Amino acid sequence: MLLCDIGNTTYHFFDGIEHYKKDAKLFDPSSIKEEIFYICVNKQAKELIKPLKNWIDLSTYVDMRNYYETMGIDRVTSCEAIEDGVIVDAGSAVTIDVVKSGRFEGGFIYPGSKAMNECYRNISDALAYSFNFELDLGKMPKNSRDAISYGYLKLLRNEVVSYGMDIYLTGGDAAEFAKIFPYSHIDETLLFKGMKNIMKKANIC
Amino acid sequence: MLLCDIGNTTYHFFDGIEHYKKDAKLFDPSSIKEEIFYICVNKQAKELIKPLKNWIDLSTYVDMRNYYETMGIDRVTSCEAIEDGVIVDAGSAVTIDVVKSGRFEGGFIYPGSKAMNECYRNISDALAYSFNFELDLGKMPKNSRDAISYGYLKLLRNEVVSYGMDIYLTGGDAAEFAKIFPYSHIDETLLFKGMKNIMKKANIC
Repeated sequence: MLLCDIGNTTYHFFDGIEHYKKDAKLFDPSSIKEEIFYICVNKQAKELIKPLKNWIDLSTYVDMRNYYETMGIDRVTSCEAIEDGVIVDAGSAVTIDVVKSGRFEGGFIYPGSKAMNECYRNISDALAYSFNFELDLGKMPKNSRDAISYGYLKLLRNEVVSYGMDIYLTGGDAAEFAKIFPYSHIDETLLFKGMKNIMKKANIC
Repeated sequence: MLLCDIGNTTYHFFDGIEHYKKDAKLFDPSSIKEEIFYICVNKQAKELIKPLKNWIDLSTYVDMRNYYETMGIDRVTSCEAIEDGVIVDAGSAVTIDVVKSGRFEGGFIYPGSKAMNECYRNISDALAYSFNFELDLGKMPKNSRDAISYGYLKLLRNEVVSYGMDIYLTGGDAAEFAKIFPYSHIDETLLFKGMKNIMKKANIC
């Protein structure tokens, strides 16, 4: 059984043993001939997949009553993966979602590191620094690079840690963000666990 | 005595009684004939003012040993205005600076609301909302507009409030940010107080 999480930049596959990614711009979904279950937030990819009968959209099997209408299916699926905890999915956006006793309690959206870097750069050339993920967040900064790194990272870390829950870290930038969440569970396949749980609940596996 | 704080978008004047602003693109600094003390973070304006003898640059009078080299002169000047507290200067960037017993303890830089709005919009059209400054920050969001508003505003508020100090709110967006800092001192002329203190210390007034 093949699973696929289609984002804006990649198709992320899981074959039950290994996971691997393909560039969303280059990959042709019709090259897959076997049955494949997917979620997708990528508009272009949605159009390509629509006519393909072996691609099965898992979003239609989710009980959306616990979520909200415009919530991304990737966030919903991550929430389905855990019973209790806070999920930090660090990609082009960083989404933070809280699940208690298997129920979505709410969440928020923070810019991803690339977008936030551009944001600071657009304000002023003087703020065009990469973030320092190794920064000591216990100290007030006294230089420009640390001043923007603290603004971006300390505020996020404190909010997430304040929930006092297990932290599940996933997404393309998970390894970078692990530096500010040292006690988190890093799980690149969290979304696939959510997909499997959706399939179990819907009795399709 | 005339004071002027020159930012990227405006010349902000204070004549000892009233303060008023002029558009930085349209204002001609040579139209002022009397002695005027200024600080400036605007490169274009700096060039225009350089040959004008009656414009006196206060940045040369500041004891910079308490600050860091690349720190904006506007942030430095605000810090000179207070003895104890945290300054939130909400403009194109939001700068947050902590002063204890008249000494700069460090600070950080967060994007201004316009820049952060653009940042979310650049990530996805689905995040192109204006911020909800009236949001109840005690509740986890369950819709997209609140999810980005919480990400931007709650994290900043909690960090600033966590210092347990008096909050001094200034800058063009001070009135908006007052909604998330209801117990702050709003002071549009904070920078001019800092300028006066610099002049007193340097014995030039």
